[in-house]
Amino acid sequence: MEEPGYPDARNIFALRAEHVQPLPVDEHGLVVSSRLENLDYVYTTPSHQSPTTVTMPLQRRQALLGSASDHDFLVIEDDYETGTQYVGQAIPALKSLDKTGRVIYVGSLSKSLAPGLRLGYMVASEDLIHEARALRRLILRHPPVNNQLAIALFLSQGHHDLLLRRLRSSYQERWRVLGDALAQYLPELTCSPSLGGSSYWLSGPPRLNCKRLQREAALSGVLIEPGDVFFMSEDSEQTYLRLGFSSIPVQQIEPGIKTLAKVVRAQL
Amino acid sequence: MEEPGYPDARNIFALRAEHVQPLPVDEHGLVVSSRLENLDYVYTTPSHQSPTTVTMPLQRRQALLGSASDHDFLVIEDDYETGTQYVGQAIPALKSLDKTGRVIYVGSLSKSLAPGLRLGYMVASEDLIHEARALRRLILRHPPVNNQLAIALFLSQGHHDLLLRRLRSSYQERWRVLGDALAQYLPELTCSPSLGGSSYWLSGPPRLNCKRLQREAALSGVLIEPGDVFFMSEDSEQTYLRLGFSSIPVQQIEPGIKTLAKVVRAQL
Repeated sequence: MEEPGYPDARNIFALRAEHVQPLPVDEHGLVVSSRLENLDYVYTTPSHQSPTTVTMPLQRRQALLGSASDHDFLVIEDDYETGTQYVGQAIPALKSLDKTGRVIYVGSLSKSLAPGLRLGYMVASEDLIHEARALRRLILRHPPVNNQLAIALFLSQGHHDLLLRRLRSSYQERWRVLGDALAQYLPELTCSPSLGGSSYWLSGPPRLNCKRLQREAALSGVLIEPGDVFFMSEDSEQTYLRLGFSSIPVQQIEPGIKTLAKVVRAQL
Repeated sequence: MEEPGYPDARNIFALRAEHVQPLPVDEHGLVVSSRLENLDYVYTTPSHQSPTTVTMPLQRRQALLGSASDHDFLVIEDDYETGTQYVGQAIPALKSLDKTGRVIYVGSLSKSLAPGLRLGYMVASEDLIHEARALRRLILRHPPVNNQLAIALFLSQGHHDLLLRRLRSSYQERWRVLGDALAQYLPELTCSPSLGGSSYWLSGPPRLNCKRLQREAALSGVLIEPGDVFFMSEDSEQTYLRLGFSSIPVQQIEPGIKTLAKVVRAQL
């Protein structure tokens, strides 16, 4: 499990696995090292690491797949936010590079279309899909058929592709405006290197307490997400925060960051 | 677990519990005996036992609750088909008689409204509901909100109550017509005593093979459900069958039973 990483995935794994291990992440995403060698499953978010948003380069992806093959582990690739890379050429998914059937690819319509529908998808071997269906039958039988039908039509008629194009253009503008505002008004915070996504991951100086910052910024009308929940370690990391921009109008971004900068400065 | 009993429930329990035990059922439903004393959970379908359709009388319900209290076990009451008792006064649910908080009541909209929506409900203590919600978050987060909203309106505006009244009157007629046709054309089969529901449970003489009967009846346009799947025991019970009538027009019932009787007689 990536550290920092997606807390819901961590909690889901902890429900059935006794030994969930945190694995370090750097500016290229999950670090491929000897720490992977004794694992059964590796969960990773290579497109935009959750929460740091860094993108795993092709070379790291190939190293991860090589390690999976050499040391006999499976990779769960969570491509939770597809099509939102704004800089450079899109890098192939692990699943599309996978020659030995070691990657289970999962995706979601929660980020693009609507989180309330609870619809996603899995790409894996026929045997694994068969087992997953059998297990799903005992858990929820199937997602509601009215939603499945509506979304199947939405996908097959190309509306989702169109939606992704629109989102990409809208997110790209907000990503640029927010990045510029952070550089201008909040140079005290360090941004992790980002090629896209729908949020920024920031760290502040040791004195910054992001739980307190969240409360104080909310009083000024700015909502931020403290980053401590993304860490598995008990001594939570108080200096990290995440700024999501998937549902904020672009013209509110700069004024919001100006306000946030005042609240940050009052704390430092 | 009732024997015979609902196979999906049995498979769901088997996923997490190592010691699922079959418990006998008689003409009053689940038998309350010393066999319950060392159990942690008892799953039961008292309104219309699945699949035998027998109804548990008040006295048996009180005995079951007394045993739960004396021997410290919990009762899962699956009232999967509510409001379909056609004879005599409705008997209170176990949950409504429960004074010591030992009953977890579950119900469903699958039988009344639509199985494809996958919506149901649970009545239990606040603590248990809190835990169930936490667990559900990790499994599916929540049922899709569009369906939850639509069904909440449907329920709150009284449409579901009206639907149940209509179904009850429609099912009652089919139940009577099917019961009469079975008595007239298939006296070789024994019907379990029924006060309602949406199916009949029948057993034939030892020579009857209901898997074969299913295949042969289908060739004549009559679909029946062999009963072996409801038994946990490996030596499957080939002489039982279930006839569901929740989606068959009433005028097709008598001709269908006449046809079925010919196929049965050819086998005996």
